[in-house]
Formats: sequence, structure tokens, C-alpha cells
Amino acid sequence: MNRIGFIGLGTMGMPMAGNLLKAGYDVTVYNRTREKSAQLAEQGAQVAETPAEAVRNSDVVWTMLTADAAVHEVIFGDNGVATAARRGLIVIDSSTVSPTTSKDLAERLEELGVDFLDAPVAGSKPQATAGVLTFMVGGPKATFDACQPLFSVMGKNAYYMGENGAGSYTKLANNTMGAINLLAMTESLMMAVKSGIDPELFLQVVAGGGARSGMAENRGPKVLRRDFQANFASRLMLKDLGLAQRLAADLNMPVPVLSVVKEMLQTTVSQGYGDEDACAVVKCYEGWLKVTAQGHSQT
Amino acid sequence: MNRIGFIGLGTMGMPMAGNLLKAGYDVTVYNRTREKSAQLAEQGAQVAETPAEAVRNSDVVWTMLTADAAVHEVIFGDNGVATAARRGLIVIDSSTVSPTTSKDLAERLEELGVDFLDAPVAGSKPQATAGVLTFMVGGPKATFDACQPLFSVMGKNAYYMGENGAGSYTKLANNTMGAINLLAMTESLMMAVKSGIDPELFLQVVAGGGARSGMAENRGPKVLRRDFQANFASRLMLKDLGLAQRLAADLNMPVPVLSVVKEMLQTTVSQGYGDEDACAVVKCYEGWLKVTAQGHSQT
Repeated sequence: MNRIGFIGLGTMGMPMAGNLLKAGYDVTVYNRTREKSAQLAEQGAQVAETPAEAVRNSDVVWTMLTADAAVHEVIFGDNGVATAARRGLIVIDSSTVSPTTSKDLAERLEELGVDFLDAPVAGSKPQATAGVLTFMVGGPKATFDACQPLFSVMGKNAYYMGENGAGSYTKLANNTMGAINLLAMTESLMMAVKSGIDPELFLQVVAGGGARSGMAENRGPKVLRRDFQANFASRLMLKDLGLAQRLAADLNMPVPVLSVVKEMLQTTVSQGYGDEDACAVVKCYEGWLKVTAQGHSQT
Repeated sequence: MNRIGFIGLGTMGMPMAGNLLKAGYDVTVYNRTREKSAQLAEQGAQVAETPAEAVRNSDVVWTMLTADAAVHEVIFGDNGVATAARRGLIVIDSSTVSPTTSKDLAERLEELGVDFLDAPVAGSKPQATAGVLTFMVGGPKATFDACQPLFSVMGKNAYYMGENGAGSYTKLANNTMGAINLLAMTESLMMAVKSGIDPELFLQVVAGGGARSGMAENRGPKVLRRDFQANFASRLMLKDLGLAQRLAADLNMPVPVLSVVKEMLQTTVSQGYGDEDACAVVKCYEGWLKVTAQGHSQT
């Protein structure tokens, strides 16, 4: 289990693979865009030309991609992981995908003698870089146990949630909570500012009481210093909320709050802020109110 | 400043007045229902027959009531605070009311030579009992400074937010954040449960990541042990969200997320859970889904 194939070197995958390298693992990387692989090659990674090639030298293949279609393509497409799969290989997907996709991948890989874990993460770029992600894992318990050393290199916690799909279910519910909390912070911060309250003082007050949240702590100060660089891009949050909304529909469950929050993220993307951090949703309110979160009138 | 009149001995007022007594203040209490005053009399409080009587022996009069109309009545009604007011008296209102009410009270009391602070609190019954509330205060800065010893008996923090009304503005924005966070927890918890995820494990997972919130920490376990005793009654959260929504309208500000969350609290009250804790909103989802937050099917 010392040879890891890592596929997908985006905002999250890059620091995750980097942490595996630093911990002494033998890492082979594949990324559609070559430049990112080159960066990791300087840190000692092998570079594969195809997903299949990343599998050949590896005991475990890790994928960290942006959407269900990309994961399907990398695993079952031309020169995909499955074409080089062999009995005993382990595939771990940390992408945020639909639980249906996770269960489908698990079934099809099982037919090839490959164990699969859906292992999406809580945390964004800073946590990925610091190696303190939280993994939510679904799949065979023995495989989960065997992979603990890998999880602990990239994360502070790995929770075993149940059989395949359970990781993705947990992740979508977790992101639903986070996204709604983000809007809780945004709407109330703008209400305070528009009332003439100092925004920094407002964030300090709420931090000490029952209204506190991780989102207010992380994204509040980011908004106030006008730093919209993506730790978690608004277009990706929108994608996740779309998955969560479809999950709710599959569960025959009304989700009124999630739905309106998703529309606000859709508004954010529609206004051209898709590549900015999800906290750029505040700009929609600022546009409506002709004021910034610092209380300055917009020119 | 050692003689305090305390008016309103509800869920919050009772422990707040109790803490003033324990700290050695000379407290005269008034409550519409006499039995509650009797409880505090056993702890050494004087009992007044009218609000005016509570004023006569006091340097500071504190009000903790449930709505704008009750505050107006207690201060400006028959035998109200104003009828016994004298130059130098300080009136502090910790009720959650509209900022317009706070500003109006301040103006009318100023004409009588009385200083007024709007000083609503973050925290519910447990924090009131432990004396660790957070006060958000609007009014004359010198009066705020003079009252610091009183705030520190009942709270861990008192923030000076600005002139009269600023305390109430902050409080409504704070409660908006808290209420939306409560629904974030509720909707995502039910999504996880309906997906077959263990609810206790789910709360543990989210507590360690960016989706964490005070509401998930405080109300999540309360929901799981089916404890709906009110720390903060759903009818009072509904009332506060109504005030927040009217504030937003006054500010000419769209609040799509607050609005849908308010409807969920309205649903909670309509279903007969108005006197239960606001976390009883989960029962609306449970009714829709025919499942409880523990994952058991409802009979």
C-alpha cells in the first residue's frame, strides 16, 4: 500500500497529493492539464500519461475530480482506471458526487475484483494544504481500516459512515448545512451593515453566541477584506447543491431552505462570480443594496 | 446604582433577576403573574404591585418582556415606569423589539430626563442561568459604561454597538443568523437520516468541519434526545423573525432565505409546537417524511 496513483490535481487534489509525497509515499499523478503534474514531478512524483498508466504502478488509486461525469470518464473511459484494474486494487474517490454514482462505481468495480470507497471530504483549500481534512467514508469496512494510514496523512479525521454511498450521502448533507450557514452569515451581515452596525463588531458579537458558525468565522473576515479568491468556488457549491436537491427529490423530501439557498448560488454564478469563492454570494446582496459589506456605498 | 427594579420574570428574566440578587443587589421585581415574583421573594427580592412601584426604590429599571406592545405598556401604560420616572433614572430594555420601538422609547424617556439603553441578549435559558449572556447595547456611551457592573453580573460580554436602536438592530441580525443556522441543521440532519446515516455520527462529523454551528452543537443533541422543552420557544423565534423581516422591508432589502425560514417557524407554530423549543421545527420535516430524526419510522 505504498504506491498511490493520484488522479485530479485541482484546488484540492494538488495539496492532497503533495501531502502523500511529503509523507514518503510513492505517488504517480495524472491530470488532464499537464502543467499541474509537472509541479508535483518537481516534488518527486511520477507522471502518468493516462489514468490507466497511473494504475499500473499503484496499490491504491485516488480520484479527486469536480463532477460525476469526470469520475465516470476517468474510471470507465478510454485508457481509464478500469482498463488496467486488477484484483486487489483499491479505488478511492474523494470527489463530491451523487450517492447513486458512488454506488454504481462500487458495483462495477466489484465485478473486476476492485474494492471501492467513496470518501469525500469536509474542508477546503486551507485544510487540504494543512492535511487536516475530514473524510466521510462509505464502502467495505476492512478496506476503510486498511486505508487509515492514508487518510491520516491528508486528514485529521476519517469517519466510517456505512456501505458504499454513505460517504456521499453524508457529504451532500454536510454541504447543505454549510451552504445554508453561509447564507445565514451573508444575509444577516448585510442586514446589520444596512442598519449602520460596524460589520467587524457584528461578526465579533455573533462569534460569541448561539448564532456562531464555521462559515461566519472563515468567510466573514474573508468578505470584509474583499478576498474572493476561491477556497471553494461558487460554481462548485452550486453543483453540490444541485446534487443535494436531486438527492432530496430521490428521497421524496421537501427542502425549502436548501432550494432558496441554491437559487442564491445560481444568482452568484449568473452574475459572473462562478470562479470566485462561494462567499462572493454577498456581492448579489451588495448589488441589490448599493452598499458593500463594509458599509461603503458602491460607486 | 445598587437598587435595581426588574420587570418581566419569564424564561430569561427570572434567572437574570436571580443573578442580580445573588450578586448582592437590592432587587425589586414586578411580574404580571404574581407567583413568579413570590419565587424571587424567597431569594430576597422585594415585590412591587405595579411597574411604577418597582421604579420608586430603584436607580436602574430593567425590562425583559416578550414583545414591543408589552414594553410600551409597562413603560408608558397606567402605573407604568414613566409615571414614577425621575431625572437620573436609567431604563434598560433587554427584550427583543423593533429598533423603531427602541428609538421611540429612548426619545420619550429622554424628555423625562431618563437615560435609556436597548440591551437585548444573545443566549437562551442556560446562558441566562449561568450568567454568561452576551449583551448588544445601544444608547448613550456614558450610560453604557456606568452599567458595566450590572452587565457583567448577568453576562460574559456587553458590546457597545452605537446609539439607541443599535442594540436592537444587532439583535435582529444575530437572531436571523441563528434561525437560519437552525434550519441548516434541521434540513441537513433530516436528509442524512432519510439517507440511512446515523444521526449522532452525522452531528459528530459536521462538528469538526466548516459546516459546524452553535445551533448544531446546542440543538442537534436536544433533537436526538427528543427534548423539546423551550430554551427559546418557537413562537418567540417566529416573532423575532417577523421583526427582522419588517426591518428588512424598512431597509428596502430582499431577504429570501430569512423569509423561507420564517415560514418554517410559522409552520412549527401552526402545527401546535409554539411553546416548544424552536428546534421543534424538525417535527414538521418528520411529519412530512414519516420518520423521526433518530431514523425510526413514525407510527
